[in-house]
Amino acid sequence: MKYPSALVNLIRELGRLPGIGPKSAQRLAFHLFNQPQEEVLRLARSIEEAVSGLSRCLNCFNVMSSDQGVCSVCDDTGRDRKTLCVIEQPADLLAIERSGEYRGLYHVLHGSLSPMNGVGPDQLTIESLLERLSGIGEVILATSTTVEGEATAMYLGKLLAERGVSASRIAYGLPVGGDLEYADEVTLGRAISHRRPL
Amino acid sequence: MKYPSALVNLIRELGRLPGIGPKSAQRLAFHLFNQPQEEVLRLARSIEEAVSGLSRCLNCFNVMSSDQGVCSVCDDTGRDRKTLCVIEQPADLLAIERSGEYRGLYHVLHGSLSPMNGVGPDQLTIESLLERLSGIGEVILATSTTVEGEATAMYLGKLLAERGVSASRIAYGLPVGGDLEYADEVTLGRAISHRRPL
Repeated sequence: MKYPSALVNLIRELGRLPGIGPKSAQRLAFHLFNQPQEEVLRLARSIEEAVSGLSRCLNCFNVMSSDQGVCSVCDDTGRDRKTLCVIEQPADLLAIERSGEYRGLYHVLHGSLSPMNGVGPDQLTIESLLERLSGIGEVILATSTTVEGEATAMYLGKLLAERGVSASRIAYGLPVGGDLEYADEVTLGRAISHRRPL
Repeated sequence: MKYPSALVNLIRELGRLPGIGPKSAQRLAFHLFNQPQEEVLRLARSIEEAVSGLSRCLNCFNVMSSDQGVCSVCDDTGRDRKTLCVIEQPADLLAIERSGEYRGLYHVLHGSLSPMNGVGPDQLTIESLLERLSGIGEVILATSTTVEGEATAMYLGKLLAERGVSASRIAYGLPVGGDLEYADEVTLGRAISHRRPL
């Protein structure tokens, strides 16, 4: 007994997705096999339409509809065009927009420096970032606070300093609503050393 | 800033998959957005080909290529046609085949009884199982040892007894290579009460 080739292919393709191992891929494949055909085809179509219907903003590399010229943030004339916020991925943009604290433009790196995974500066949109600096007063480095995100922020900070552009890093500290008791010691240490006058 | 509709659709469709919540769906969608187009299209095609290329064996409801008449197990004339092994899903069939301990036929229920999730006898292939009983000497109930699997085995055992067909349940006990120390108390209790003479 072997699985039919259509099933083997499906399991293999699902298994390429991040966070989905061989067992999960098999479970997903059988789940799809047990669903009504039209629902499964809707998933396939949504993938195909994402391929044809989505592209990266030529300006900031945010995700946008292929029929747009630039993304809706870059297109918004009401925004502060002197400030750039550098983020790792489009999802981070939405998170910052939801905070309501930022009205400048963005630059999406599409990843962070990770030599272990073969991601160097050329795999990110750093070259294009450096080409966008004329007229920019401040670049906020809002990469994540992981080792890779920190390294990316440090690397960009150096490049920006060389070009005389002022750069800042988002603040470390306790999350709002967080209990001191449950904070890890590194975060708590940063919250104390970066304390602000009342 | 809102996501383009093609992205929203993709996130929604991915989020319908079991074990994939809204956050994972978003992460998967952005992962696909960052992959080469041909790889993403290969995933979509493998899903479509699974829809058109796979169907259920008319006999035992195992998964098979749509161009087969019955599945490769039912088609194998070397197998014992007097024994049926009832399982929840096609993946279980492969697991039992790998054990090399069974040479009879199968019957795939495609689920287990779960009134909480609206799965009653009519949602499973129980009717067809009852129609396959002529000439069958033993039915092995190999549903899983979860609450639902147990309930399904009990339910089927009663139906089979009413029809005078002998039914058996796969054995409980310690997994081979298992440390007593790490076994849960229910399993260990079953392993003792179901002990066998040496």
